[in-house]
Amino acid sequence: MTAYQPRTEEMHFVLSRVLNAPAHLQALPAFAEVDGDLMQQVLDEAGKFVGEVVAPLNRAGDEIGAQWQDGQVTMPPGFRAAYQSFWQAGWPALSARTEDGGQGLPSVLEAMLYEILSGANHGWTMGPGILHGAYECIKHHASQELKDIYLRKLATGEWLSTMCLTEPHAGSDLGLARTKALPLADGRYALSGTKIFISSGDHDLTDNIVHLVLARLPDAPPGPKGLSLFLVPKFYPDGSRSQVHCDRIEEKMGLHGSPTCVMRFDGAVSHIIGEPGKGLNAMFLMMNSARLHVALQGIGLLDAAWQKADAYANERRQMRAPGQGKSAAEADLIALHPAMRRILDTQRAWIDAGRVLAYRTALELDLIAHGPDASTQAAAQRWCALVTPVMKAVFTHQAFHGGSDCLQVFGGHGYVREWGVEQNVRDARVAMIYEGTNEIQAIDLLVRKILPDGAQGLNALLDTVQAELTDLRHLPAATLERIARLRDITSSILQVGSQDVALPYRVADDYLRALALVLLDWAWLRIEASLDDEVPEVDQRWRLPARALRHWVLPEFDMRCQMITTQLQAD
Amino acid sequence: MTAYQPRTEEMHFVLSRVLNAPAHLQALPAFAEVDGDLMQQVLDEAGKFVGEVVAPLNRAGDEIGAQWQDGQVTMPPGFRAAYQSFWQAGWPALSARTEDGGQGLPSVLEAMLYEILSGANHGWTMGPGILHGAYECIKHHASQELKDIYLRKLATGEWLSTMCLTEPHAGSDLGLARTKALPLADGRYALSGTKIFISSGDHDLTDNIVHLVLARLPDAPPGPKGLSLFLVPKFYPDGSRSQVHCDRIEEKMGLHGSPTCVMRFDGAVSHIIGEPGKGLNAMFLMMNSARLHVALQGIGLLDAAWQKADAYANERRQMRAPGQGKSAAEADLIALHPAMRRILDTQRAWIDAGRVLAYRTALELDLIAHGPDASTQAAAQRWCALVTPVMKAVFTHQAFHGGSDCLQVFGGHGYVREWGVEQNVRDARVAMIYEGTNEIQAIDLLVRKILPDGAQGLNALLDTVQAELTDLRHLPAATLERIARLRDITSSILQVGSQDVALPYRVADDYLRALALVLLDWAWLRIEASLDDEVPEVDQRWRLPARALRHWVLPEFDMRCQMITTQLQAD
Repeated sequence: MTAYQPRTEEMHFVLSRVLNAPAHLQALPAFAEVDGDLMQQVLDEAGKFVGEVVAPLNRAGDEIGAQWQDGQVTMPPGFRAAYQSFWQAGWPALSARTEDGGQGLPSVLEAMLYEILSGANHGWTMGPGILHGAYECIKHHASQELKDIYLRKLATGEWLSTMCLTEPHAGSDLGLARTKALPLADGRYALSGTKIFISSGDHDLTDNIVHLVLARLPDAPPGPKGLSLFLVPKFYPDGSRSQVHCDRIEEKMGLHGSPTCVMRFDGAVSHIIGEPGKGLNAMFLMMNSARLHVALQGIGLLDAAWQKADAYANERRQMRAPGQGKSAAEADLIALHPAMRRILDTQRAWIDAGRVLAYRTALELDLIAHGPDASTQAAAQRWCALVTPVMKAVFTHQAFHGGSDCLQVFGGHGYVREWGVEQNVRDARVAMIYEGTNEIQAIDLLVRKILPDGAQGLNALLDTVQAELTDLRHLPAATLERIARLRDITSSILQVGSQDVALPYRVADDYLRALALVLLDWAWLRIEASLDDEVPEVDQRWRLPARALRHWVLPEFDMRCQMITTQLQAD
Repeated sequence: MTAYQPRTEEMHFVLSRVLNAPAHLQALPAFAEVDGDLMQQVLDEAGKFVGEVVAPLNRAGDEIGAQWQDGQVTMPPGFRAAYQSFWQAGWPALSARTEDGGQGLPSVLEAMLYEILSGANHGWTMGPGILHGAYECIKHHASQELKDIYLRKLATGEWLSTMCLTEPHAGSDLGLARTKALPLADGRYALSGTKIFISSGDHDLTDNIVHLVLARLPDAPPGPKGLSLFLVPKFYPDGSRSQVHCDRIEEKMGLHGSPTCVMRFDGAVSHIIGEPGKGLNAMFLMMNSARLHVALQGIGLLDAAWQKADAYANERRQMRAPGQGKSAAEADLIALHPAMRRILDTQRAWIDAGRVLAYRTALELDLIAHGPDASTQAAAQRWCALVTPVMKAVFTHQAFHGGSDCLQVFGGHGYVREWGVEQNVRDARVAMIYEGTNEIQAIDLLVRKILPDGAQGLNALLDTVQAELTDLRHLPAATLERIARLRDITSSILQVGSQDVALPYRVADDYLRALALVLLDWAWLRIEASLDDEVPEVDQRWRLPARALRHWVLPEFDMRCQMITTQLQAD
């Protein structure tokens, strides 16, 4: 089995050479001291920790998994020790504010950290993965009293958190949630109800767990506007245990290293966060960042599967490959067979483009928070609003379906546990569902974000994309044609959709894919532009996936347009 | 959890109404007495057995799985009893010849039986699934002495069999196999070597197991032409144990109900089957039938996933669906949401077309064996040679990727074991690999079958497909255009491929998909033609998947052609 190795050098190439991130960040007062060397250094240290400490635990995470007994969850061997080293080394605090005990570094470094953590050990990473949203939520919405107790603990990761949203009958539709919050005389609330699919609802990674819970006050209206947000820890500051119980954990297809808990709230005494009825607003604040992290899980997991397939294909020989001279060996390397070469190059094209787009989006998150002026912040907000759902959907899709292609490179050996690639595929599948299913991402993109402003935001995004390509030496005509076609199709959807309310929903998935392909093309043109001065052997590393993108990925664009056009003309 | 239910009525509709099978079969002397009523009756009985006896064991097959201890494999609870009922009821003998203890019924009934067995319990079905090839192999190649001992046992399924091909370093490339066969003084051979990935290498379903083993005589040339075929049972006729040992079973992504064995041959005394050096020929004899069975596994497993998703989507409510009037319930059925409707209709389009194509191919297998004249047999042979690899590749692909779409209908509930759909997806994945990987199917189709005769066979197949459409009332222009385009592209591949030996390998996967889409279109046009006289509500059952095929499946054809064209023009 080939263990996952963080490719920090390639990641840094994308960050500094393709995206020119150090210059962009240093222009912001908040990151005046963040130069390329510092980022490289952080990244190298992260790579070392992830490769040496987190990656080796992945197999046990799958095979032994999190175990539930008598209401207590025990994590797989080594998980707690690794997590304790992780937070004590300051990794969860990377981009938290310095005044809260954080390091105040840019989000993009945190994003890169989560890419490699997920590639190394998706299950383990679920623990800290949810922390950052909880930190932001408490920072921006909780009372000072709550902040005094919880903010630093979450900023540093000394304690971990949960997001308790889903209920047995309320999955994608949180408005159906029924958990009750009964006001107590002292201003606190007693929570009663059952939440399901709660990641890290119980575990032994940390000494305390902070639950953020959506619930309904007695006089709340039905639907999403009746939901408020509450905080209840596993242990109160006085050391007493709250009435929050883990009744069982789910048996899942994969991700066995992360306990997916059924949580019972038995009149659990809690604090409200923010205003009554504004619970969803408080949670949606960190949605872009959370969804970007899920996209990064996809990129990391796809890279993990790709690394294994690439190593295997360059080591194992089967049959003669066409057009190769007879070698001394009795068969040719799998990597020389065209069908396998195609898989390897195509998946690498996705991974590389994914990095460009994900790091760029993380840089835009930094601009939202620290941008010099309102128009910069608004542009960054637009990028994140539109690109994040695309990233979440296509890279979680690719981690599963493209990961399955990587499995195929192994033949029968891919289907057995030994090589680890089947675990990547099983683990990856959940990311297409959580944090908003991929179908909901598509609706979010088209119905909630693009159409309401008459596609002004989308056209502005496409202007940005296009403007960043005009300085390239070689700008393919097909690229500009695709952008123009997407604008046209968007305007047709606006027009037909004004008569047929279901139309945008029928085309949303295809539309998201079409926009994704425009973005992938942009990412690869940026990569190629940054290679102009490279030596030939470096260039070769990037030339094969670039070709695979043109030959086997981008042709999907026309197909998606055809599917949308059919719907536009349908009865 | 919704248990899989064989849809024998719909299957019989395809068989009798769409394919007019009873009339075709009765025209053959061998099946003069096989009328529609008999076939319906066999199918109903099969559905009853599969639904009541085999399907309920599927969950335990996954969760407990086959267990290895001290060289012995114990099958999951209930597996042996179900198999004993199965063979005693005559099911394995359905299409075996009457003189061998079989029932002499057409292959198409056996094909339909294996579709529903696989949908109900893929793991269990692996046991009898391999039997039919072994029966044919022994019938056509073994000595009378071997036939006297083994033929009836295999025809009836009283004993089960294996195919021992793969070795640790020889997967797709069987020519690399090294297992040795040392001639003994009495005309028998001592086999020594290790075989891996041997399905049902050991188990307790039957009292004996007959191993068919590829091995190399001492003077054999290297490569595939040095392989001979041998037979060695677990127990010899005198009751003594052979030196064939199961050293362990693999831990796999799925298919836990089927033991995948590492088999060690320690000078195991065996008989040769057929001539020395002709081992692969003997095994390839039954390849079309075996690959068709794998395609049917795909269809069955996709139907199993679809049935679960369909039931869930028509029971569970989440959010308002667009364009639906407000109902009294607080949310709409999942089935009313366009993205979910699309998944359900699209996967059903694949299942229905799969049945038409698979049953038709099985009917052609019957024509190969029992056709009235040489030209009928040759046409049937052509259909099977060309359509079988297509079926194997696309329906195993669809069972996994489309099965994953069905899983998506459940949201988070699809990822947990409870509903059973994630097991279908895990189980299905292996079928893309075994019996020749899907990439090898594509090479088989294009490089080995279509190009060598200058595409004469392919054009003859397309003539047949086209001729069977000309009597339709509505024949879409796009259908004829696709057929014409496929002919053109084939001739371009022939031309360019004569200069560039690797070209056909680069386009083989896309080519197989393009041909598959032409065949799917044909299948659906046949279905629709057979509906002309149906009542409206029956028509509605078929109208939705027919539309899904046109809207979301067939557009892939142009994309595949574009991908091929790019390669034709590439350097």
